[in-house]
Amino acid sequence: MIKAKVIGAGGYGGVGITELLLGHSQADLACLVDVADIGAPISKLYPHLIGFCDMPIVGADDPQAQEPADVVFMATPDGIGMQLAPAELAAGAKVIDYSGDFRFNSPESYAEYATRIGRDPRHASPELLPQSVYGLAELHRPELNSKTRIVGNPGCFAVSCILGLAPAVKHRLIRLNSIICDCKTGVSGAGKKPAAGFHYPARYDHMNVYKLAGHQHVCEIERELGLLAGDSLQIAFTAQVVPVCRGIMSSLYGELADGISPADVADAYREFYREQRFVRLFDRDADVGSVHVRGTNYCNLIVDMDARTNKLRVIAHIDNLVKGQAGSALQNMNLLFGLPETTGLDQPSRYP
Amino acid sequence: MIKAKVIGAGGYGGVGITELLLGHSQADLACLVDVADIGAPISKLYPHLIGFCDMPIVGADDPQAQEPADVVFMATPDGIGMQLAPAELAAGAKVIDYSGDFRFNSPESYAEYATRIGRDPRHASPELLPQSVYGLAELHRPELNSKTRIVGNPGCFAVSCILGLAPAVKHRLIRLNSIICDCKTGVSGAGKKPAAGFHYPARYDHMNVYKLAGHQHVCEIERELGLLAGDSLQIAFTAQVVPVCRGIMSSLYGELADGISPADVADAYREFYREQRFVRLFDRDADVGSVHVRGTNYCNLIVDMDARTNKLRVIAHIDNLVKGQAGSALQNMNLLFGLPETTGLDQPSRYP
Amino acid sequence: MIKAKVIGAGGYGGVGITELLLGHSQADLACLVDVADIGAPISKLYPHLIGFCDMPIVGADDPQAQEPADVVFMATPDGIGMQLAPAELAAGAKVIDYSGDFRFNSPESYAEYATRIGRDPRHASPELLPQSVYGLAELHRPELNSKTRIVGNPGCFAVSCILGLAPAVKHRLIRLNSIICDCKTGVSGAGKKPAAGFHYPARYDHMNVYKLAGHQHVCEIERELGLLAGDSLQIAFTAQVVPVCRGIMSSLYGELADGISPADVADAYREFYREQRFVRLFDRDADVGSVHVRGTNYCNLIVDMDARTNKLRVIAHIDNLVKGQAGSALQNMNLLFGLPETTGLDQPSRYP
Amino acid sequence: MIKAKVIGAGGYGGVGITELLLGHSQADLACLVDVADIGAPISKLYPHLIGFCDMPIVGADDPQAQEPADVVFMATPDGIGMQLAPAELAAGAKVIDYSGDFRFNSPESYAEYATRIGRDPRHASPELLPQSVYGLAELHRPELNSKTRIVGNPGCFAVSCILGLAPAVKHRLIRLNSIICDCKTGVSGAGKKPAAGFHYPARYDHMNVYKLAGHQHVCEIERELGLLAGDSLQIAFTAQVVPVCRGIMSSLYGELADGISPADVADAYREFYREQRFVRLFDRDADVGSVHVRGTNYCNLIVDMDARTNKLRVIAHIDNLVKGQAGSALQNMNLLFGLPETTGLDQPSRYP
Repeated sequence: MIKAKVIGAGGYGGVGITELLLGHSQADLACLVDVADIGAPISKLYPHLIGFCDMPIVGADDPQAQEPADVVFMATPDGIGMQLAPAELAAGAKVIDYSGDFRFNSPESYAEYATRIGRDPRHASPELLPQSVYGLAELHRPELNSKTRIVGNPGCFAVSCILGLAPAVKHRLIRLNSIICDCKTGVSGAGKKPAAGFHYPARYDHMNVYKLAGHQHVCEIERELGLLAGDSLQIAFTAQVVPVCRGIMSSLYGELADGISPADVADAYREFYREQRFVRLFDRDADVGSVHVRGTNYCNLIVDMDARTNKLRVIAHIDNLVKGQAGSALQNMNLLFGLPETTGLDQPSRYP
Repeated sequence: MIKAKVIGAGGYGGVGITELLLGHSQADLACLVDVADIGAPISKLYPHLIGFCDMPIVGADDPQAQEPADVVFMATPDGIGMQLAPAELAAGAKVIDYSGDFRFNSPESYAEYATRIGRDPRHASPELLPQSVYGLAELHRPELNSKTRIVGNPGCFAVSCILGLAPAVKHRLIRLNSIICDCKTGVSGAGKKPAAGFHYPARYDHMNVYKLAGHQHVCEIERELGLLAGDSLQIAFTAQVVPVCRGIMSSLYGELADGISPADVADAYREFYREQRFVRLFDRDADVGSVHVRGTNYCNLIVDMDARTNKLRVIAHIDNLVKGQAGSALQNMNLLFGLPETTGLDQPSRYP
Repeated sequence: MIKAKVIGAGGYGGVGITELLLGHSQADLACLVDVADIGAPISKLYPHLIGFCDMPIVGADDPQAQEPADVVFMATPDGIGMQLAPAELAAGAKVIDYSGDFRFNSPESYAEYATRIGRDPRHASPELLPQSVYGLAELHRPELNSKTRIVGNPGCFAVSCILGLAPAVKHRLIRLNSIICDCKTGVSGAGKKPAAGFHYPARYDHMNVYKLAGHQHVCEIERELGLLAGDSLQIAFTAQVVPVCRGIMSSLYGELADGISPADVADAYREFYREQRFVRLFDRDADVGSVHVRGTNYCNLIVDMDARTNKLRVIAHIDNLVKGQAGSALQNMNLLFGLPETTGLDQPSRYP
Repeated sequence: MIKAKVIGAGGYGGVGITELLLGHSQADLACLVDVADIGAPISKLYPHLIGFCDMPIVGADDPQAQEPADVVFMATPDGIGMQLAPAELAAGAKVIDYSGDFRFNSPESYAEYATRIGRDPRHASPELLPQSVYGLAELHRPELNSKTRIVGNPGCFAVSCILGLAPAVKHRLIRLNSIICDCKTGVSGAGKKPAAGFHYPARYDHMNVYKLAGHQHVCEIERELGLLAGDSLQIAFTAQVVPVCRGIMSSLYGELADGISPADVADAYREFYREQRFVRLFDRDADVGSVHVRGTNYCNLIVDMDARTNKLRVIAHIDNLVKGQAGSALQNMNLLFGLPETTGLDQPSRYP
């Protein structure tokens, strides 16, 4: 059995991977680490886990936290993983980090990201960057294997935008610099910490844009799509919050290149995702939305062309906490340990 | 493998047992039957099932629907199961019926129920009633075994009230005729069919009482509690809807009998539920609510005494679609086939 | 024009009276006082007020806050009003306080309240208590007049329970010590400050009980009903939160006294509320709920008898922020200034 | 007093104008007409109106419905207004129609619209079209005056898109054929009739796109923007539903023309809306969203430029049932009767 440690276990990202690991046939939870609620069973924080997981949360300096693990999930904000990763790797663990720390595999690309989001451009462990892999299996599966030691798990918005646009930019179905990503997220994307904007009375009947000046996921979207296209590109991106708990709905637009037919588009997407278990394709008549991926690792793509205005339009749906976070992390773990990619991710969710 | 047929597969009760059977290691879905959407894959009605279950819905007269099954789940309204059960039983299947048709195991008690809810007091298959078992395992486990052929799966409100009050009435901790059940349900309890009262704009910020003149679950609560108490009793019952999707929160009150101490109450509940995997007990300081049982087969009971007013107060939480419906049905199936009671019901839900 | 000052203007209680005063033909907002956001226009905190009220919030020591007002609304927590009231009264203002500070008009009754909720039993301005009036006009209208200087505005749950039970206890339709108040509130009742239990992802699909050990509104309910009954009484009270924004639904139960008929009940309620513009009576068949009082000063009462169990059952609906707070405060102001009681409260709300 | 008749009074559009007229100082409700619920007081359908408006709904052939009115609000679907308008006009009333029937003031433009949405291209009262005015006061105020007899009240999405883009297209800040309108609506936009997609359990945690093949509001947006631009144009438009009750949030994008500076954009919008009481302008740092226009006739515009990608980005917020429907209708009535435009629309809403 794979021994898994979760750092940042008390947040939504931590409980998400905890839930998934509890249902995984080849992995065991070894340790739950956090800086708060130390000593409390995880089921005290999350009473739905009573009887399923009553393991206490321990501090980073607890002996239990020092014991070697096979994989460490760092459900921590930017700046933590880059400090903790070297010791974990030295102890023999593989590291899957949720933050932006390992999404860029060169000091230069990291510095550009950090600068854009107002952080120190110097990475604390720059020597690790070349080994890190951007953890979106649909693009980087060959690099996600038993030799991989560090994964930069992707941002939730980024997953939806990259999966929605990858075939189009790879095959240059659209003009690279015409891309608009109009993205709506559920409130769980903001994490567990209460704040004025997520207080129920202020949030329940409310939708709004935020971070118009720039969202931190833009960098990785541009980088990954640029790598696919073989050219740099820039996207217009709008982040919005709507009162659902889980779910991202990204409406993605691009101007079609000359002579692109509906069949070209359909073929490109079908081909690109032929072997991808967690991507489903739909056409414009499909009646699917965010709830149909809720609680699962699927990305549902509605691929459409607006002939009147010569635009590609793709609607991407994911669960921000699963395919957008813990689910991708588990999918990456499966790949790193040579397991079937769907292990622990192969159950439908509950509806309604 | 147990071959399972679901009748009424297209409703919330049908999709609920379908989801659970997909995750059950010892059962296979054999057939999905309904009167509407015939020919459509269940995943067309419920796109979250795409790739997990694309089995088409068939009509009752379809050859596939005629093939013998080991168990038939009748996710059908009152009056259907009593007509279909004889043929299914004759073909060798066990029948688990969701409606009130088999919750009363004598023609007399059925007639009383039917009369109170305004239905024909004559049962279509009265000869089957004595064999039927009220499907609440926490009370009737000894009768739920490999010889059982018919189960009357309990009503959702009834599950919460009976589990919340059973120890109290059995041990006469409270005066039998002082019971008040103040019950709130999520909207999914009303089923899949759209109606004015469940239209999102009318429902989203709204709570209200309904059926003040009498709710159909009162009969079975009074009957089951009366059997436990060894005496007849009558309850005051108020049904309410609040804008959650899943969940029942029943606040249950009774006047304490003379000389009952907090320890008496705590002991009685602890003892009664000692071996019951799906009932969790809490005291008044616990911070648990409906979301902590959402998607699971658990019943969470907060057991409290109000010394000032000499009252027992129990708050019962269940998921109306799981422990209140499909989960209990699966639990009953497990018992009827000699499987561990928790098979297919042993995974935590997702939070938030 | 009545010059009105609001202390605690930045909270939900403050913005509630601000909204109402903006629509009041005989009153003007003179000053908005708070301890936070000083200098910011109220419309910065509450952008729905842009263009309607852009008055800045000032601190208590601001010269503007020192200017005399005709009425001061203290939308402040327990313990503030009792300190500030003397100066306001001395300056000639009438005081309407939202907290428990002036709901009890003797040092003894205040001390009992304070003790039960764990506060210092000594009132900071005990000499004012005999002049204070409990601000529920339906019970105390004769005392709410131009001579009244201090009003203790009632608690939100208390309004619903007292209005729902007043005719029954006054006419002894029920046994006094049999009362159960099962109360559900919307989330806005918790105020504006973010907290874990009101964080949207934790709250949106969740219902739960809280403060089972005792809620601060119980004292005033028992006191006011006791005064009406001419005898002391004790109630069982359960506070619950459900995911609506505004609204209280209180299900109120009592054992009927001997020989009480449905007509007795109906007559008592009709008579009691004959002249009360803000109370509407309904019978069990009415399809009304919380949304039908949302945004208004109405209390809707469904008055019902359960003959089987010999119980009175009343369902009381109010908007916790209007009749349960700012609306009652404005109603009280109208009475204190000799205005028609409905001034500024006579517009329907928006639906849906 | 203006005597107002409402046809289609029982729907959300009807109750919306009813609520507004009840608060209007210069107009009286004369008659509520509908095809269903005849004889029932409007307050039976909408209990929040009890005591405010208990007028019964009458059929179109009721004598009361025949009495002359000064203004008729036709809160009816496409195809009704064009049949009823001639008689109302002949009787001396002005007509404000909610549907697409009078949004196009020539038979040719109407035919194009009707064809695109699959209706008969022949208008039932083509002679009236040249007199009709598109009822968006911010664009057509000079034509909305005492001589105006017919108003085609605008579509809800159209209001948000046109107001959001009008200054940009008028001043050619953007390339005309680069426009993308990514629009999200609350559920009330679908009206009062229950349907599977708006059933609470299916809707509450769900967001989705719909009508990708073409939405009926596109025609009027293209027409009105084209008239402003002095050239025809085509827009890409995506309709989405999110689980709020009221509100439209439209994210509007266009490629900036050469040499357009942020100041050019800001100036154009400020100038265009200088005298417009119901449009508020914000920059990218503003924390405003749908709830801040809820229940009011305001349109809030966040005007932003994305220099990196050379795009104009405008976020438009309205209440779909007020500025998107009944509020605009009342604003139009005010103009047609020479009243101040804000009469009956000058109160803030309630928050939270």
